[in-house]
Amino acid sequence: MNENQENNGNENFVRMESDAFEEGMVKIHGSIHRLRKMSGFSFLILRTARRLVQCILEPGRCEILGPDGSVWEGPLREEMCIRMEAQAVREPRSKTGWELHPVRIRILSVPAQTLPVVIHGKEIPASLETILDYRPMTLRNEKERAVFRIQDALVRGFTEYLQRNDFVQIHTPKLVSQGAEGGANIFRLDYFGREAYLAQSPQFYKQMMVGVYERVFEIGPVFRAEKHDTARHLNEYTGVDFEMGYIEGFEELCRMEEGMIRHTLEGLSELCGEELALLNVRIPRIGSIPFIRFHEAKERIARKYRRPVREKEDLDPEEEKLLCELIQEETGSEFVFVTHYPTAKRPFYAMEDEADRSVTKSFDLLFRGLEVTTGGQRIHDHAAQLAKMKERGMDPEQFESYLMIHRGGMPPHGGLGMGLERFTARLLEQDNVRRACLFPRDIHRIAP
Amino acid sequence: MNENQENNGNENFVRMESDAFEEGMVKIHGSIHRLRKMSGFSFLILRTARRLVQCILEPGRCEILGPDGSVWEGPLREEMCIRMEAQAVREPRSKTGWELHPVRIRILSVPAQTLPVVIHGKEIPASLETILDYRPMTLRNEKERAVFRIQDALVRGFTEYLQRNDFVQIHTPKLVSQGAEGGANIFRLDYFGREAYLAQSPQFYKQMMVGVYERVFEIGPVFRAEKHDTARHLNEYTGVDFEMGYIEGFEELCRMEEGMIRHTLEGLSELCGEELALLNVRIPRIGSIPFIRFHEAKERIARKYRRPVREKEDLDPEEEKLLCELIQEETGSEFVFVTHYPTAKRPFYAMEDEADRSVTKSFDLLFRGLEVTTGGQRIHDHAAQLAKMKERGMDPEQFESYLMIHRGGMPPHGGLGMGLERFTARLLEQDNVRRACLFPRDIHRIAP
Repeated sequence: MNENQENNGNENFVRMESDAFEEGMVKIHGSIHRLRKMSGFSFLILRTARRLVQCILEPGRCEILGPDGSVWEGPLREEMCIRMEAQAVREPRSKTGWELHPVRIRILSVPAQTLPVVIHGKEIPASLETILDYRPMTLRNEKERAVFRIQDALVRGFTEYLQRNDFVQIHTPKLVSQGAEGGANIFRLDYFGREAYLAQSPQFYKQMMVGVYERVFEIGPVFRAEKHDTARHLNEYTGVDFEMGYIEGFEELCRMEEGMIRHTLEGLSELCGEELALLNVRIPRIGSIPFIRFHEAKERIARKYRRPVREKEDLDPEEEKLLCELIQEETGSEFVFVTHYPTAKRPFYAMEDEADRSVTKSFDLLFRGLEVTTGGQRIHDHAAQLAKMKERGMDPEQFESYLMIHRGGMPPHGGLGMGLERFTARLLEQDNVRRACLFPRDIHRIAP
Repeated sequence: MNENQENNGNENFVRMESDAFEEGMVKIHGSIHRLRKMSGFSFLILRTARRLVQCILEPGRCEILGPDGSVWEGPLREEMCIRMEAQAVREPRSKTGWELHPVRIRILSVPAQTLPVVIHGKEIPASLETILDYRPMTLRNEKERAVFRIQDALVRGFTEYLQRNDFVQIHTPKLVSQGAEGGANIFRLDYFGREAYLAQSPQFYKQMMVGVYERVFEIGPVFRAEKHDTARHLNEYTGVDFEMGYIEGFEELCRMEEGMIRHTLEGLSELCGEELALLNVRIPRIGSIPFIRFHEAKERIARKYRRPVREKEDLDPEEEKLLCELIQEETGSEFVFVTHYPTAKRPFYAMEDEADRSVTKSFDLLFRGLEVTTGGQRIHDHAAQLAKMKERGMDPEQFESYLMIHRGGMPPHGGLGMGLERFTARLLEQDNVRRACLFPRDIHRIAP
């Protein structure tokens, strides 16, 4: 390779993504992840963009230059960023199959302090609170950063599947004049003298766009001012939302989601096989995801686990877990669609079931004990939507621009919203959704 | 095709994306975009997800059923959503090369009102204000919706290029405890009793992530509480941000962006050739984008156009236009990188040029007269960053979690942020950036 290659200064160094070294001299860069002095040499673990590479540093056999290019007299330190020229030698005992023997190190930057937490072990020996407090540094840990490589691969898979199925990606406003999901869990702000809100979902906008492109999706932030302080709530999360027109029933939405998840999980090992192995991820098999009606689910849980029904119109977290247990025992599936949620618990735009107006053409997807998606068919008829809003004591005038589509003509349609962090957390069997969010926001945390 | 295909109710109808009909009977769905009564028959233009399809409706030769399945006695109306069975006949005079002769129409939904604006012409005969007021409906116009198909294709191209170059896609919080760009143009809100802000950019977070993955990107909303009311400002826009480590100079960032834009523009016609043709889009040729230093640019504009220099440390909009004119005359390029912006006008994290500390290692990309990107190399050394903050009277304690990375060790790095709407608007040579935003937010507008 040519060191003076113009186009991209990085390309003159072997990028570890290319997987294999060639025997001989290589150029490589990264951070000193770990340094261990042995007798007569040091182990240096170099952290590159994706891997940890074992290097053997022998004093006197490696020239070390400082940031200014002069000979470096001091010691090497962890978290220095360096460029290295080294002899690559096959070494079956090393994880990459190679060992590097540096002959020249150029220090690019020197950290001002040693880290307040130890990040170079397999796990970080600290509480979740501490891990999150020092997130900019703790994400450098190999397991921590593997999580978000997997999350990136999930987004790639979802996107690819939706694009292949003719969904158009949209970017809709997060500053809105009206909340879509109702309730008090909405952030308010002053917008040039008027009250505005942060979007609780792209619901209204993706419906509007069904009238334009028939099928649309958005992957973006969603804001919920919920005061819950649990292992499964975030106040800002990444919503994977899609909406599609000309459906004949909500089951089509479920099948589309099933296809999307299957495609994504099947593609994961190619995109991030090493990270999956590092985190011991059990990828669920997806056949045909079973359906169960909400009321049937309630009854069966109560019967099987001899549990009194406290809340009639919703599943509590414990019930979600038990239901998944029950379904997995019976069908082997780690996913289940719970359908026909009570009308009273669904938003004003949810379509009721003609056969029984007390339930809606809606569903949740549960995965390993947790709700990861909510979706359903929407009301598309103007008169029906107006009637339902009046029934609920809502003022249609406040929803003027939303109702424009019902007034102007809409096809039968529906969609869903998946929480990216929840899906990631269940896939990785993490105990807290915060672990699947780069910089989580909760009732106590707004930094880093 | 089998009408009872289970997997996806839409697949039993020809999706127009598949481009060609086969001679014979087809099933298709869409909205009645336009109806024109002629003598003895009607022209019906069906708007599908992507095309306008010409249909010839002959009374007595087409059975029409209403939403409930019974024979429809009333007239057909524009913006009804329908499913249709029709005879496809080759017709060279029609835009798709086909004409449909419906034999059966099933009305799926009936609009409650005719539209307040006429959307079925080539252009919408209304002011921008009106177009935006009725955005959920006006986006159904063929030219309006073509804009956002092209924007979708841009995002696909950018994403694909960055992924091929080992950038990891990230999702960083929009609720933050500290603004990254300084100044008063920041939205504030109450976050459970504390003051929080809406992110003016993902700047701090993408820098943090360089320490983790070396190369990252994010495509997401960015909020600016600017009171500007111009044709090029939005208060919420979609930022295309990337950041990369181990650079040797900011020119690498420019070359990466150049590659990204070239790849994207080269792929456009495959993804949205029809939309490009419909909007007469002139795709710029990208060779090697020329560079010019800020001060040289100022001087040359002043000399060539005999213009007094009013603002010494920035280019005003008129100067941006003139500079692009000048560069295009000289080099043929419709893009130009303006480099070495004055330190005083760049944020506290911008790296100064060692040769002249009054300028920074930074750049803007101008495209057809408008700044579409700002980028540069960042300070990675802790002491240097602290010194600069103190010089500017900033309190480092307020930036505790950001400075964690400088303290802990960072490679030389930099990045940029592109405004998706501005880029789209210049590509399409639109007179107002609002036209390239689905639901624009400005000082007067927060709905729809």
